[in-house]
Amino acid sequence: MVPQWTIEKKRDGERLEDCEIREFIGGFASGKIPDYQMAAMAMAIFFRGMDAAETATLTDAMMRSGDLLDWGACPMPTADKHSTGGIGDKISLMLAPLVAAMGVAVPMISGRGLGITGGTLDKLDSIPGYNSRLPVADFQRIVGDVGCSIIGQTARLAPADGKLYALRDVTGTVPSIPLITASIMSKKLAEGAGTLVFDVKFGRAAFMRTRADAEKLLESLVSTGRRMGRKCDAVLTPMDDPHGRAVGNALEVAEAVETLRGAGPADTRALTLDLACRMVALASPGQAGDGLRAAIEHALDSGAALGKFVRMVEAQGGDPRFVDNPALLPQPGASADVLADRKGVVAEVDAAKIGRVALELGAGRRAVTDAIDPAAGIDCLVARGEAVSKGDRLMTLHAATPALAEGLVAAARDAVSIG
Amino acid sequence: MVPQWTIEKKRDGERLEDCEIREFIGGFASGKIPDYQMAAMAMAIFFRGMDAAETATLTDAMMRSGDLLDWGACPMPTADKHSTGGIGDKISLMLAPLVAAMGVAVPMISGRGLGITGGTLDKLDSIPGYNSRLPVADFQRIVGDVGCSIIGQTARLAPADGKLYALRDVTGTVPSIPLITASIMSKKLAEGAGTLVFDVKFGRAAFMRTRADAEKLLESLVSTGRRMGRKCDAVLTPMDDPHGRAVGNALEVAEAVETLRGAGPADTRALTLDLACRMVALASPGQAGDGLRAAIEHALDSGAALGKFVRMVEAQGGDPRFVDNPALLPQPGASADVLADRKGVVAEVDAAKIGRVALELGAGRRAVTDAIDPAAGIDCLVARGEAVSKGDRLMTLHAATPALAEGLVAAARDAVSIG
Repeated sequence: MVPQWTIEKKRDGERLEDCEIREFIGGFASGKIPDYQMAAMAMAIFFRGMDAAETATLTDAMMRSGDLLDWGACPMPTADKHSTGGIGDKISLMLAPLVAAMGVAVPMISGRGLGITGGTLDKLDSIPGYNSRLPVADFQRIVGDVGCSIIGQTARLAPADGKLYALRDVTGTVPSIPLITASIMSKKLAEGAGTLVFDVKFGRAAFMRTRADAEKLLESLVSTGRRMGRKCDAVLTPMDDPHGRAVGNALEVAEAVETLRGAGPADTRALTLDLACRMVALASPGQAGDGLRAAIEHALDSGAALGKFVRMVEAQGGDPRFVDNPALLPQPGASADVLADRKGVVAEVDAAKIGRVALELGAGRRAVTDAIDPAAGIDCLVARGEAVSKGDRLMTLHAATPALAEGLVAAARDAVSIG
Repeated sequence: MVPQWTIEKKRDGERLEDCEIREFIGGFASGKIPDYQMAAMAMAIFFRGMDAAETATLTDAMMRSGDLLDWGACPMPTADKHSTGGIGDKISLMLAPLVAAMGVAVPMISGRGLGITGGTLDKLDSIPGYNSRLPVADFQRIVGDVGCSIIGQTARLAPADGKLYALRDVTGTVPSIPLITASIMSKKLAEGAGTLVFDVKFGRAAFMRTRADAEKLLESLVSTGRRMGRKCDAVLTPMDDPHGRAVGNALEVAEAVETLRGAGPADTRALTLDLACRMVALASPGQAGDGLRAAIEHALDSGAALGKFVRMVEAQGGDPRFVDNPALLPQPGASADVLADRKGVVAEVDAAKIGRVALELGAGRRAVTDAIDPAAGIDCLVARGEAVSKGDRLMTLHAATPALAEGLVAAARDAVSIG
């Protein structure tokens, strides 16, 4: 294969053969095809797209660049969820133990946050002692014993994706549905869960700004997963307002515990239950049907899911006493309340602005190498539709220093529109 | 500047600011912007194009990556020609001395051939002793003394073009009008001639296959040259049939000498005169007008142009005795005639097929590092519209060995259609 001929073929709008895609990705993963040819190919794919079969082959080639986990020895069916990421999205923390409580194993490999979007791994890492960098053997053992485990991406799963993602990030080739699909799916498929549920966000704080783009990505993820032999389901969820009332790592863990106690914000609870229903129905069809929703609500409200969560934290080296005593989670150096400057009804809470405030408070990172402050962030956040009086608290900011927290009050107030 | 933001801007169809183009090309030339970002940018330009002002800025930035020649001390006006390349195109060999004979200096920097397209430099290098790698000071002295000089591309003129061309060649980003324009024009403008005439070929053996594409390139070259303060003119010429009756380096030099004697094939003579008229009229407006064509024909037929050619060859170290004794040019090891297998009128001579036969005979190179056989090629070639009888010679092939020459007879015959 002459790599530039394959680039030219895609450039001219022709579809690529399976073997062409496999040789190209294999060559890129091994270093035989240099970054500049992959960059030109990625830009050609940005403009010309890929059909469903090409996207599946691209995904498969990237998946096969590393290890493939095998859950054949696991006595339970396996399921996983992928969210394209939102502000305050802590759903995985409740979802994995809840689905595990229903007898479906959840081997979840998660990422870190970047920019305004948080990462499940950063949230878990705020739990004292929690080890998110387990060897695969331990990960598989915990999934078998507890029913769920959440660890970080390992360098051995789909390494071509890591290499390609870094290249796309600096060559203007991130927003391409087939490339996004292959990036998400190569890792999820290498992870090996038998069923996959996608939560594709759209809105001003989402990767996909419009519902139409989010629908295209949803369709591409589901069709690729199905072509690769997995049962798939998906939901589209708006990401204009933050999820729940907490944004920030330890703060979201505390809200997750609240939700696992059967309380927590209504939106957070509802999405957790919806995704759990879909995962269990797909992975364990015997449980599907009229009674499933009630059974899942019971698993949440009875504390069964919380029990799984505690066992998972313990199995991964964490100290679960924070579940009963949130003060054992990292505590901020300073806090500042943001107060309403007028009376009215909250017309909107701009998730993108809230995300930027949380980032500046120290809850996120601008570059992958930045450190984060696990205690930083926002809680007690008002929600759209709530009535407030002048002087009422709209949210509380937490940061390392009073100056940092106070300095962001105005920006935080600006995120809430009172109508 | 964040390079990927500039890539994204072009990717999304926005026009780039002058400073963005200059920073990008400057960064690429200095190595600060890596090849993979330039490759993604080149592909984005392939899809989105560039307007005339952007193309001129790109050209200017590439031109300024190296030395700029200055002809302020030359007592004559200066002119140059660029052809996009054709089979048997030896026009520069007659044109430079003919225009010089009219009192217009021609400082010509030429390239080598690649693939089926020959290069002026390879033709001149078949002259015993001719030195095409002169220092710039010698080049400028000879142009001043003789009126013309033809040398090879130096590494110090528009080095960003050399780097970008090599990258485009392996990333599927060659056929982009703004990138082609900037590549051609950055070198021609750095060379410093005050007027430029373009010969843009179209047809099956040309870089631009269709007349419409060739027109676009012509328009882009002329508009860029004019924006950069040069007088420009251009012709579109078909490249379906070879130029003249000789294809191959020493063979084309011999045909050039014939033409400089006032003889030579009609098409070769006509294009030489046409381009010379345009160059002289632009560079020396006092000579423009009704009498110019006759004056140029006189300069050719009187031997004045041949005299300039001989002086140029001598000044560049060549032995000019081949002008009177073509046997002093490199001679082939073997020759083979290609005979007509039927009676009729030549309906076409496929220049692309002739170019491939010449390449295989040893007259060209597949890769830039290949050696060429200066004596190899084709001469005595029939032309479209000529009547032939069965057994008449259609052409003669020349190569290093009888096997090589004989082995290509069938392919050569296949290039000529007798109707």
